Amino acid sequence: MAHPAPNVGDEDILLRSDSGGIAALILNRPQARNALSLALMTAVIDELEVIAGDASVKAVVIAGNGPAFCAGHDLKEMRANPGRAFYEKTFSACSRMMQAVVRLPQPVIARVHGIATAAGCQLVASCDLAIAADTARFATPGVNIGLFCSTPMVALSRNIGRKQAMEMLLLGEMVPASRALEFGLINQAVPEAELEAAITEMAGKIAAKSPLVLKIGKEAFYRQLELGLSDAYDYASKVMTENMLARDAGEGIDAFIEKRRPVWQGR
Amino acid sequence: MAHPAPNVGDEDILLRSDSGGIAALILNRPQARNALSLALMTAVIDELEVIAGDASVKAVVIAGNGPAFCAGHDLKEMRANPGRAFYEKTFSACSRMMQAVVRLPQPVIARVHGIATAAGCQLVASCDLAIAADTARFATPGVNIGLFCSTPMVALSRNIGRKQAMEMLLLGEMVPASRALEFGLINQAVPEAELEAAITEMAGKIAAKSPLVLKIGKEAFYRQLELGLSDAYDYASKVMTENMLARDAGEGIDAFIEKRRPVWQGR
Amino acid sequence: MAHPAPNVGDEDILLRSDSGGIAALILNRPQARNALSLALMTAVIDELEVIAGDASVKAVVIAGNGPAFCAGHDLKEMRANPGRAFYEKTFSACSRMMQAVVRLPQPVIARVHGIATAAGCQLVASCDLAIAADTARFATPGVNIGLFCSTPMVALSRNIGRKQAMEMLLLGEMVPASRALEFGLINQAVPEAELEAAITEMAGKIAAKSPLVLKIGKEAFYRQLELGLSDAYDYASKVMTENMLARDAGEGIDAFIEKRRPVWQGR
Repeated sequence: MAHPAPNVGDEDILLRSDSGGIAALILNRPQARNALSLALMTAVIDELEVIAGDASVKAVVIAGNGPAFCAGHDLKEMRANPGRAFYEKTFSACSRMMQAVVRLPQPVIARVHGIATAAGCQLVASCDLAIAADTARFATPGVNIGLFCSTPMVALSRNIGRKQAMEMLLLGEMVPASRALEFGLINQAVPEAELEAAITEMAGKIAAKSPLVLKIGKEAFYRQLELGLSDAYDYASKVMTENMLARDAGEGIDAFIEKRRPVWQGR
Repeated sequence: MAHPAPNVGDEDILLRSDSGGIAALILNRPQARNALSLALMTAVIDELEVIAGDASVKAVVIAGNGPAFCAGHDLKEMRANPGRAFYEKTFSACSRMMQAVVRLPQPVIARVHGIATAAGCQLVASCDLAIAADTARFATPGVNIGLFCSTPMVALSRNIGRKQAMEMLLLGEMVPASRALEFGLINQAVPEAELEAAITEMAGKIAAKSPLVLKIGKEAFYRQLELGLSDAYDYASKVMTENMLARDAGEGIDAFIEKRRPVWQGR
Repeated sequence: MAHPAPNVGDEDILLRSDSGGIAALILNRPQARNALSLALMTAVIDELEVIAGDASVKAVVIAGNGPAFCAGHDLKEMRANPGRAFYEKTFSACSRMMQAVVRLPQPVIARVHGIATAAGCQLVASCDLAIAADTARFATPGVNIGLFCSTPMVALSRNIGRKQAMEMLLLGEMVPASRALEFGLINQAVPEAELEAAITEMAGKIAAKSPLVLKIGKEAFYRQLELGLSDAYDYASKVMTENMLARDAGEGIDAFIEKRRPVWQGR
């Protein structure tokens, strides 16, 4: 059952629910369509830091409570705190939160229903995987309110083609889940009634892998993407050798050859 | 109504037609299928420079007169001027033209009918957005005439997947609009009779945004693409803060909260 | 008719069959589902080196004998040779083989039937083009046996979107050819009975181009991908000028203007 994330205090803006090695983080500002207030972003960052060090968590799901997944930044909070200092603090926290998702050792799956807009869309793009209800909608609508989605574009443009990213950014219109799937922004679009089951199935599959191996692979994935081909191969070859020397690789290969289930030790 | 671009002299190889903040640049060498002679590329570069400084232009459309959008370089001109000096001048002008499209503060939409081949296909890939008639066809056919489309590939390979880019480059065959859409090279393929309306609608939507915000966003888009994730976020966060401090952001957010239309001041 | 690749000795683990300027390299360890033993990778590297210097070869096809295209590394060999030294040797050979495909002057087409998994999937991703039987299946299943597909990801993530790559890497499941086509990992999926004809057709088209021009273009393609836009244009413009000064460009353009078939001289 979901409960306030331990380190969030009594505000309950972020819930956490653990089951079978899967930690679900639930954005819980339903009336504000889970707008990313500074407090909520800080709570997510803090909770991800806790999870990073928690060997019992094998996979993470990020979800939203209420009618929306996440409507982006909390514009009312920003307009109530005008000035460079607060804006810098907000965008810095946002960028740290998105990169904390990318750097988390465990894979992160976005569970998208309703709308995922602006930094909410960025959050989907920043997760390793994403499953959406077929009724979900995506947008980077900042251009409509005079604030171009420049930080969301960092994640978005690393997920989908340039023309498609530019269409979302310059027009600021809602994109249905079916089109987000074609763009490559999400992995699956399923009927809303099947969303929970699809998430549970995918997260369950990941939780059955060796957490050490997931950590090795996820870290290497994002790192090698920023290298040229030759450097990427030099780096990835080293990662493979280290991985091969881990106990879980020996166990996994032996189990495969012996046609039995591997028993991971996470080392 | 279209008229010769002011700075082109009396050759009329480039027409310009302005309406509602939208400047249409019309390649006008219909008998040569709008082949990019040195004079035509220079005219486009000069006109884009004029537009870059013209606050009344909110969006740009690049179109072609006659049966083709653009058939690439003017091969007859090149063969009539053999030698390194003219080739260097030509490819340098071409690269400057393509980058002028990318660097133009205003968004640029390609309006593609007929064929868009070689540097014509590159021009489509270089625009921020592209709508094509469903009868349009795309190719990088240089390989067929002994001149690999090496500069077109720069834009093409930044728009579509590697396998698909290589297919176009190595085979040099025509790709129908439907497939170009699947590849991600264009945003829409519409019946030819609806092309003008689709362009007008998209350009009109863009022209209704704050030109300052479009400029901030477009520049940031291409710049952050060349950075690693961490640097991209550092840069984009700064862009967001500056954008947030602009008058149009305050107006846009207030209008959004107050559920009214924003009045942009472009600052 | 296929025969052992000349430099492989009497093991016949790699066959080579030449026809009409097209060299087919056939992985020939059918009982091991063409697992990439150190000897097989070395044979491929050596054969590609021979081909690189052989002007009579215009295009290369990589295929597999038996029920599978290629099942990746030879796990039994690796487990039989435990320790850092052998692992390093293996992954180094694998990375050299993949890069030899990328650096080969001639275009390389993967002919995929059955399964292409782990380094077998990487080999498909490393080829310039790929055609698969619609019954073919692709996976990076290392995560299931405790050995994340970290070197395969280098090629895979440069072919398809991040969410799709992560799905393959984190879940390790089989992806049917139809989905690999949507992802952009392959160029065509055809009925198994038509695979050979589709490969022959595509390779034949490539073999009809100027080998010099293919070499110029392929090399430039991968090199410019690693540059920023401005540097990529500077580089590609130089490549175009050099290409334009080649005899085959003059011949190709003249033939095009004169509506006749060009006669390539490869210079």
